[in-house]
Amino acid sequence: MNPDQKITNTIPDYWYNIQHDLPEPLPTVKDVIDEGGSRIERMNKIRLQTLNEQDANTEKWVKIPDEVRQKYSEIGRPTPLLRATKFEKYLGTNARIYIKREDLLPTHSFKLNSAIAQAYYAKEEGAKGLVTETGAGQWGLAMSWAANAFELECKVFWVKISRKQKPYRVDWCKLLGTEIIDSPSEHTWLGKEILSKDPDSYGSLGISIGEAISFVSENPQYKYVSGSNLPHVLLHQSVIGLETIEQLKLYNEEPNILIACCGGGSNLGGFAGPFLEEKLKNDQLRLIAAESTAAPRLTTGEYKYDYADPGRLSPLTLSYTLGNDYMPPPVHVGGLRQHNGSTVIGLLRHLNLLEAYAYDQKQAFDAGKLFAKLYGIIPAPETCHAIKATIDLALEAKKNKKKPVIVMCYSGNGILDFEGYKSVNK
Amino acid sequence: MNPDQKITNTIPDYWYNIQHDLPEPLPTVKDVIDEGGSRIERMNKIRLQTLNEQDANTEKWVKIPDEVRQKYSEIGRPTPLLRATKFEKYLGTNARIYIKREDLLPTHSFKLNSAIAQAYYAKEEGAKGLVTETGAGQWGLAMSWAANAFELECKVFWVKISRKQKPYRVDWCKLLGTEIIDSPSEHTWLGKEILSKDPDSYGSLGISIGEAISFVSENPQYKYVSGSNLPHVLLHQSVIGLETIEQLKLYNEEPNILIACCGGGSNLGGFAGPFLEEKLKNDQLRLIAAESTAAPRLTTGEYKYDYADPGRLSPLTLSYTLGNDYMPPPVHVGGLRQHNGSTVIGLLRHLNLLEAYAYDQKQAFDAGKLFAKLYGIIPAPETCHAIKATIDLALEAKKNKKKPVIVMCYSGNGILDFEGYKSVNK
Repeated sequence: MNPDQKITNTIPDYWYNIQHDLPEPLPTVKDVIDEGGSRIERMNKIRLQTLNEQDANTEKWVKIPDEVRQKYSEIGRPTPLLRATKFEKYLGTNARIYIKREDLLPTHSFKLNSAIAQAYYAKEEGAKGLVTETGAGQWGLAMSWAANAFELECKVFWVKISRKQKPYRVDWCKLLGTEIIDSPSEHTWLGKEILSKDPDSYGSLGISIGEAISFVSENPQYKYVSGSNLPHVLLHQSVIGLETIEQLKLYNEEPNILIACCGGGSNLGGFAGPFLEEKLKNDQLRLIAAESTAAPRLTTGEYKYDYADPGRLSPLTLSYTLGNDYMPPPVHVGGLRQHNGSTVIGLLRHLNLLEAYAYDQKQAFDAGKLFAKLYGIIPAPETCHAIKATIDLALEAKKNKKKPVIVMCYSGNGILDFEGYKSVNK
Repeated sequence: MNPDQKITNTIPDYWYNIQHDLPEPLPTVKDVIDEGGSRIERMNKIRLQTLNEQDANTEKWVKIPDEVRQKYSEIGRPTPLLRATKFEKYLGTNARIYIKREDLLPTHSFKLNSAIAQAYYAKEEGAKGLVTETGAGQWGLAMSWAANAFELECKVFWVKISRKQKPYRVDWCKLLGTEIIDSPSEHTWLGKEILSKDPDSYGSLGISIGEAISFVSENPQYKYVSGSNLPHVLLHQSVIGLETIEQLKLYNEEPNILIACCGGGSNLGGFAGPFLEEKLKNDQLRLIAAESTAAPRLTTGEYKYDYADPGRLSPLTLSYTLGNDYMPPPVHVGGLRQHNGSTVIGLLRHLNLLEAYAYDQKQAFDAGKLFAKLYGIIPAPETCHAIKATIDLALEAKKNKKKPVIVMCYSGNGILDFEGYKSVNK
């Protein structure tokens, strides 16, 4: 097999449901009853029925609908798995490093894998449109793309301060027909309430989530969708790991170390999740989460039930958390800045099936710059964390005279994120 | 064959040299003798020897060096040729429309095909680095990428006003290790002279060309390279058309209309050039140049010898020209704003082998927006002109109840060009 050359296989027919193989059942969501009744019931109502069912499903394989598979093909799935020999050579390691290229998808990140599935189900269930929130914008853009592809309306509540920092992503979404709403906004009671107290509010992801939810509660022809954390998102993202398994076979390789960045957990869960069965048989296989020191949940957080939002408007889920009032410093890795994350990832970590390392943004962007110089492609800020972990583990192998096969998920393209790269040089 | 699905073939072993099949020899360059002697000799000296030889070569096939072919593979060649059924359906035409996707290359445009070849020859000839000029930046970025890939230095004289309008392309080049020089600059006698007269000069492409040339004249360890116009650039770009010929065979199609945008002529020449042999046998095959009304050389220009730059520092070439003092209005299609163009394209037009249509920027961006909405991808401003021509010809076919096979070159990705899209809405 030629190095640095892409090999392809076919798109899987089924998504992999990690819930089937978890050594313990996934911890249930704890309800909160408030003046409006059960929060779980309220959330289920504003979400798509199929996705609620997928969250509760424990069957191992879930059929990928034909139309979704067709769209996966159109966006360039299977994405290539490349051997990074130039990177190995630079590091002087005997590790063999493989890179799964999710940045090549048309909206620049892996987020599109779930966005397409969610838009498809929304169309099936007769929704008029989809409503979501976004910060840095990778999810907002992916959802805009997918909604447009399935001819659905799309409304994105965009954290006001973040929207101003990502003008091109906003323009792109608008060109796809999405309505972008600066959050806090006059579109919802929550936004109005916040603006009446602070007309200059910059907004926050918590506020945007709250606005998206309250908008859909009052406009039930729309459905509320999320881009990470939830089991159905990890299910859709399993396409990444399943392709990787088949592609490694074509290279005749068995992986020793799997690395992905980790925020809400859908990139790591989708990429490394399908290897869980192997991990349970072979404890030498290492699954690695690369997180940001700006929100080091898995490395320093506590495993306990918490709300998903600082407003404490959600039900409670069990995962590693820094506390729902934790305010991450304003670093340029929107995708890794949550105070808690996926229950699946939390359980894997709790059961010691997952290692985690945290990196600051200087470490991460320096790793990204190295990769950019070697390959001429610009990693997304989140991806830079996975590259940093890959460098560390490759150098560790060099020191220990080992030759592991390291496989890294290259989650996204950073050419609209130069502000982050420049900020660490100041 | 499934619609909207990519099919691939292999990368050609040889470039196609259109000079072999031109019904008349390519008009020679006319020398100008000034105080420094022969301009042709001076230009030849600062350029790469292999490229000078390629300009003079009339053999039909030129072997693509193995290392260049390997790089073509790494950047994703062959690029897909897609059937655009959704586009056809929207237009209600019976034309079958195919799109050659050069935007998928890692620097977002077809420019990389020649940049890689030029960097390879520079390495072979022992140059220390490459020097060029750029306006909108697609060429500067492609050259930066290729120089970095072959471990050469790269210096880009960037028209000062344009550099400010494309901050992300500049950042990208810098991350690849390129030295970006605001032009006019203090690095050359020409730049100094201009700045002494006008310290706030915005610069122009002519000034940047002049600076790049004068820098290399004084620093012969560097070589001067160009991204369009010249026969060797069209030669390298023939990889686009050659792949398209093979891919159309896989679709079992014979083309009737070939469309590309036209500025310096390397996109059109590279894409449609390899079909010339067929065109000479079959006059029904139509080759179409889509140009901008901002610089409508082929539609309204005069076929005569002219300088390449407003400073009249170059030798003279024969092509269609608007006059070397023509100042195009400041529209957002950097790639289509030259007063003259390739001698090859000029000759094709002069011999009536090429049709040309000019579109204003509103027409072009409206066509681009339609395409963005249909496919979720953002065409570069230059590409929008080709899309507009495709729409017009598909609708003409509808009116005439014909069913032509239209093949369009989608030259570049416009996600760093949103300013242009927004400007026409004002």
